[in-house]
Amino acid sequence: MSATAELVEYVVKSRLSDIPSDVRHEAKRALVNIVGCALGGAREPAVDIAIASLGRFAGPPTARVLGRAERYDPLFAALLNGVSSHVHDFDDTTPSNYIHASSPVASALFAYASENKVSGPDFLHAFILGFEVISRIGAATYPAHYAAGWHSTGSIGVFGAGVAIGRLLGLQTEAMTHAVSLSATQSAGLREMFGSMGKAFHPGRSAQSGYMAALLAQNGFTGGKFPLESPRGFAAVQAGTYDLARITDRLGETFELRFNAYKPFPCGIVVHPTIDAAIQLREAHGFVADDVEKVELRVAHLVKDLCNKKVISTGLEGKFSIYHAAALGLGRGQANIPDFTDEAANDPAMRRLRDLTEAVGDDSVSDDAVVITVWLKDGRKVGMKLDQSLGNLERPLSDAQLEAKFRAQSGVIAPAQADAAIAACWGIEEMADLSTLIDHCVPKG
Amino acid sequence: MSATAELVEYVVKSRLSDIPSDVRHEAKRALVNIVGCALGGAREPAVDIAIASLGRFAGPPTARVLGRAERYDPLFAALLNGVSSHVHDFDDTTPSNYIHASSPVASALFAYASENKVSGPDFLHAFILGFEVISRIGAATYPAHYAAGWHSTGSIGVFGAGVAIGRLLGLQTEAMTHAVSLSATQSAGLREMFGSMGKAFHPGRSAQSGYMAALLAQNGFTGGKFPLESPRGFAAVQAGTYDLARITDRLGETFELRFNAYKPFPCGIVVHPTIDAAIQLREAHGFVADDVEKVELRVAHLVKDLCNKKVISTGLEGKFSIYHAAALGLGRGQANIPDFTDEAANDPAMRRLRDLTEAVGDDSVSDDAVVITVWLKDGRKVGMKLDQSLGNLERPLSDAQLEAKFRAQSGVIAPAQADAAIAACWGIEEMADLSTLIDHCVPKG
Repeated sequence: MSATAELVEYVVKSRLSDIPSDVRHEAKRALVNIVGCALGGAREPAVDIAIASLGRFAGPPTARVLGRAERYDPLFAALLNGVSSHVHDFDDTTPSNYIHASSPVASALFAYASENKVSGPDFLHAFILGFEVISRIGAATYPAHYAAGWHSTGSIGVFGAGVAIGRLLGLQTEAMTHAVSLSATQSAGLREMFGSMGKAFHPGRSAQSGYMAALLAQNGFTGGKFPLESPRGFAAVQAGTYDLARITDRLGETFELRFNAYKPFPCGIVVHPTIDAAIQLREAHGFVADDVEKVELRVAHLVKDLCNKKVISTGLEGKFSIYHAAALGLGRGQANIPDFTDEAANDPAMRRLRDLTEAVGDDSVSDDAVVITVWLKDGRKVGMKLDQSLGNLERPLSDAQLEAKFRAQSGVIAPAQADAAIAACWGIEEMADLSTLIDHCVPKG
Repeated sequence: MSATAELVEYVVKSRLSDIPSDVRHEAKRALVNIVGCALGGAREPAVDIAIASLGRFAGPPTARVLGRAERYDPLFAALLNGVSSHVHDFDDTTPSNYIHASSPVASALFAYASENKVSGPDFLHAFILGFEVISRIGAATYPAHYAAGWHSTGSIGVFGAGVAIGRLLGLQTEAMTHAVSLSATQSAGLREMFGSMGKAFHPGRSAQSGYMAALLAQNGFTGGKFPLESPRGFAAVQAGTYDLARITDRLGETFELRFNAYKPFPCGIVVHPTIDAAIQLREAHGFVADDVEKVELRVAHLVKDLCNKKVISTGLEGKFSIYHAAALGLGRGQANIPDFTDEAANDPAMRRLRDLTEAVGDDSVSDDAVVITVWLKDGRKVGMKLDQSLGNLERPLSDAQLEAKFRAQSGVIAPAQADAAIAACWGIEEMADLSTLIDHCVPKG
């Protein structure tokens, strides 16, 4: 059996009752997190511009958009959900391959479920399947695919949206295979977009593309039969080296949601250790921005490669600047959404700290670590090594911390709605119709 | 200046009057050809299924679709034009890189011009620019990009649609750069789709994606600044080797439309020599299907790699089967649209001829040649070498042959409309509003 065939078989035949309760709980944590992020990003310029540019071409307004009052067709709603939930780079990440899997899957599913009646269990199940498919294709093609320059949240996210919507549409083997194939042939998204709105466009477009793939496949639109494994298929074309066995190995027995991480800081996950360590140093030694004379960061080469933007002028660039990360931790002692605005990027104190920071790629430092050394004007030299930042797998955010993160981002809805939305996520397995949750996530009046 | 910057500068500043008249005439030939192909494919299942699947999500019906009575929003119309104009694989090809550049560009432009007033000269100019951009990016990344498994009609076509629509929107340097960038990050389309409807989906989706990129960029949606040349940009990510100088070398002086070819047969261009030679052999030696005992084809390795489907069951597969190509030429003496239906693929006489044909990859045979040897049951052994098939650059279809090809595909409109549409293409430089041409290409009543 081909990898595609085995994966399709699993997606078509899986039952929610076969999925362990800890995985189902992790899926709910992922939903609390991603819905909060969608609310937090719903009024960002990237979303407003997408609406200004494309809203007049949207179809009948049968679907809702998380965090917005407007209604659009579900394909456009899927795109908007994807942009809003990723624009702050605050959504979840699987540290083993840096994919933000929830955004493309949930963005499509929420759009679908706002037009069609979907039960909570069916929604949760489709979400878990979509997440699993993305994570496994990601594992099979990491690091080659990502290292080549693909933003896998888009280029692999499309598969998750395709199978999740396909599952809700009830696609059987042949149609589900074509849904995977038509997802594969829309796989796109370049890391060159990092630091621009294009990055958040990726999960949005992949949510929309996967959704389209499933709709087309449902009606008999055909793709190739071996989209993952053929010589001209996804893996061979988009990853220099890959291991297809990782797509199907222990499928249905192990679950990638167990290895999902939730961010405490709204920026690239690889700069989290730097922020965390910088905040700790500042607190331990009681200095402020002006006291700093020089900073050295030793980080993995991958981290430097991803986040080597020293001269920045926008908040979006700041999310991928190891220098801005250090500046925020050392100079402000925090890194929240307001610390990644254009204003924060152009704050002279932040600029000075970025300028005096040197980042060094170091083979001995792992991707989730940092060695930071700070020279202070008073002659002190302080430093530390940090191995796993807050939010990473060894120091995960608690359910309560996820709820607090949700509330902090939910200004577009009333506080009572936020409470109800959080409760609805935890209670999704008892929900008859997902519109109950969606109602809470849309501004009233 | 970066390749992106130079290309953008050219697209923004180009004037139609600077484009030589032979290039403008070639653009009109390309339009006659692509409009005919769109009409010929407008009632194909791939188009019907796309409408059945996605039509209800289309926005306000302000745009028209070539060859169909329905109206949709222009983004969906662009997708449909792309599918219809490529589904028979009868559209134009640049033999130097196998891109079908007209489909993604014209598909987007016709959709745009059916919603917005566009003069004939502006339309022609935008078409020439889109074609040029695709061809130059194609030249810069060929053969690595195509050989890797990308269907460049989709993966590079998106750039042409983006800049052509961007030009009509009047985008200036910064916005046009983002249009190129947001096109790049939607670059997609795998050769694994060959032989399925997914292949025709590519120019459709790329027309739509490029159109979207231009609309987003117009309103300030940002992408990376160096989408073509950065280490994580299109060329580095999607081509193992490339030569960016070919994007800008003698830009505005040489024109790729001069090297565009129009197909006499509705199938992959690389099997054209086989069809042409097989028809010639049959005519020269007076045999029929049943007389053939054995066939050997010696073709370039690329040709065999692309078209090595011996066992086929659908017409779409037949378009990429060197065996079906030989069978049609030898057994039917023709290769027209009805010869690439599912029925033709399953014709026992064709199956017998495919089964007794052997294809051999041969380094000494060029991509546009074939050496065919046929053993007949009566003991005769006949053969020939053919170097350039009809329709290739050395034996181009004449204007009259292009008109005949148009008429043969235009059954969805009245013969008088076909005549008027052809005349409108030739007279496009004198047309005040492109809707004149579009009116002729839509079924009446």
